[in-house]
Amino acid sequence: MKRYLLAPGPTPIPPEVLQAMAQPIIHHRAPEYEALFAEVRRDLRQLFQCQNEVLMFAASGTGAMEGAVVNTLSPGDPVVVVRGGKFGERWAEICEAYGVRVLPVDVPYGKSVDPAAVSAALQSQPGIQAVFATHSETSTGAVHDIQALAAIVRETPALLVVDAITSLGVMDLPMDAWGVDILVAGSQKALMLPPGLAFAALSDRAWAAVPGARLPKYYFNFAAERKAIEKNQSAYTPAVSLVVGLQESLRLILAEGLPNVFARHDRLARATRAGVQALGLTLFAEHPGAACTAVKAPAGIDGGAIVKGFRKRGITIAGGQGSMKGKIIRIAHMGYVDGFDVLTALGALELTLADLGYPVKLGEGVRAAQQILQK
Amino acid sequence: MKRYLLAPGPTPIPPEVLQAMAQPIIHHRAPEYEALFAEVRRDLRQLFQCQNEVLMFAASGTGAMEGAVVNTLSPGDPVVVVRGGKFGERWAEICEAYGVRVLPVDVPYGKSVDPAAVSAALQSQPGIQAVFATHSETSTGAVHDIQALAAIVRETPALLVVDAITSLGVMDLPMDAWGVDILVAGSQKALMLPPGLAFAALSDRAWAAVPGARLPKYYFNFAAERKAIEKNQSAYTPAVSLVVGLQESLRLILAEGLPNVFARHDRLARATRAGVQALGLTLFAEHPGAACTAVKAPAGIDGGAIVKGFRKRGITIAGGQGSMKGKIIRIAHMGYVDGFDVLTALGALELTLADLGYPVKLGEGVRAAQQILQK
Repeated sequence: MKRYLLAPGPTPIPPEVLQAMAQPIIHHRAPEYEALFAEVRRDLRQLFQCQNEVLMFAASGTGAMEGAVVNTLSPGDPVVVVRGGKFGERWAEICEAYGVRVLPVDVPYGKSVDPAAVSAALQSQPGIQAVFATHSETSTGAVHDIQALAAIVRETPALLVVDAITSLGVMDLPMDAWGVDILVAGSQKALMLPPGLAFAALSDRAWAAVPGARLPKYYFNFAAERKAIEKNQSAYTPAVSLVVGLQESLRLILAEGLPNVFARHDRLARATRAGVQALGLTLFAEHPGAACTAVKAPAGIDGGAIVKGFRKRGITIAGGQGSMKGKIIRIAHMGYVDGFDVLTALGALELTLADLGYPVKLGEGVRAAQQILQK
Repeated sequence: MKRYLLAPGPTPIPPEVLQAMAQPIIHHRAPEYEALFAEVRRDLRQLFQCQNEVLMFAASGTGAMEGAVVNTLSPGDPVVVVRGGKFGERWAEICEAYGVRVLPVDVPYGKSVDPAAVSAALQSQPGIQAVFATHSETSTGAVHDIQALAAIVRETPALLVVDAITSLGVMDLPMDAWGVDILVAGSQKALMLPPGLAFAALSDRAWAAVPGARLPKYYFNFAAERKAIEKNQSAYTPAVSLVVGLQESLRLILAEGLPNVFARHDRLARATRAGVQALGLTLFAEHPGAACTAVKAPAGIDGGAIVKGFRKRGITIAGGQGSMKGKIIRIAHMGYVDGFDVLTALGALELTLADLGYPVKLGEGVRAAQQILQK
């Protein structure tokens, strides 16, 4: 059966990238690797829209999240954490695992944080060291207003730390211009690579916090990694094949051009939303992001059954996590995807809903999406 | 120019493995991945020669080393660390980064530890929680007698933690039979994969220490990973493409058969040693392992110049690290290698030494190696 991957990570990998990674492996101290890595470093700074080096780890994105905590904080430090889904909750879990004191700003699943609530939390006690937030909360499909949060946080001594794992290369997030202090990303989303690379970029303000941070660390030691990267190397053996793929995927992204990449994701997201709404379904997120669309399962139909209906047709999408299990489905449109992937998803959704006894007029969702794509 | 990779990691990747990893990526919650992962888990236990699950992390080997420390120890715990090279020193650095008290057993570079010295260190004070050792010290080419260390350590309450990053799949190391408590490995050595997967297997005794270990952790949390693996999953997104390659490389290793794999590495190591000695060169390690051969640069010749001479001919080997820089070269014969790789290395060595003015009779080293390979 022909297969389609439309889950929010891993995402499909372009053939050019697969080919590059299938070449015989090179050594990470060899001149060929050093030339490649220098190009990758330059292109990563363009993608992150930042001046400082982007650190790279052989790890899942969660590893770079842990790095952001342990390299800037000390035991007992108070921090604000925006929790509006599984990934916001992960920031809190990491902080708690390291004895950092979490002041949560809880946001109901599917909603986006009110910046005023973050402002109030920051003022609730002195000495708050950092605010942890999620740009694209993959578990709910919601986007949080990082620009508004940055404007608030930069008026205080706290650092703004943002999980951009499913937003980097999807939605505009000019790190330096907005004043984000740490941006964390992963390889298996809009970067169109297999999982296994994690990234973190730090502002000068964030770097200034590093020497005083007393939490223990070794593998995710940002200062050691910066020292190595300034010599065009990594502190530990890098995930060479993924870096070779990264060179290729960064070339693809930058050749398309960041504004075009963001516009494409926005168009695909709007088409998907129009399609599911034309079928009478309801979006789960109040402010949906462009990475993935979370849709409420219609009354009386299990979200898991919809996911299985897609799988039967060769398509992988995602269901809900935790308490959202069975209640939502998540269709990604991130990375190596175009309008026809959206039509595929909507076509499969219509066929699956029909199978499950939901009243659907075949082609209605597809047409609504086409009308967006046509513009 | 045709290229050869004969450095101690990354090592060459078999075409079957490159092909497998070049397939379109699959999702880590999809049924195809789950079937693959179940096979990988079973084969890993065979390779580790252990009954318990082998945990897997998206990380370099160093990440699993950190995991071994933070999952079994508490701040201030005294531990014994065998330091006989860069990787033994890394155990000490990780312990110190986490406030673990290191009692070093220092071994001159190139020597192997005297088990009696470890025994004495264990008796030097009460309450020692663990002994950290390196099976194959890649920086010097020395092998340490893990069987002898295990016999000593298992008479005490301490855990024996072994870095087998360049020994797993190279030299016999029956974890359960010898009584090793934690075995750590990486993907880019005898496993014939790109870097980016780290492994750790724990004995029942090691698992018993996990609940009481108070060092902080999140990404390298062994208990969380065990809980996930028992459901045939990973706690965080796994490095899917590398796991797909791992399925293939484990099949290759187990089809050859572990005893044959160990015998092949032993034969290639003996051939390499015979070859360099026939050229009048001296081995750096007193007890050399089968993963890589460290050779002293002849008087008056810089080891770096030899490495460059290989590179000029398309071959990547390694020089010395730290204080060994310029003094040794390291030729690996690990993973996807056979006797002709050894002849290639020795042929290039002869040509390079001749270029550098060292008196060499071309073919002498190659012949000595052939005589071993012929048997």
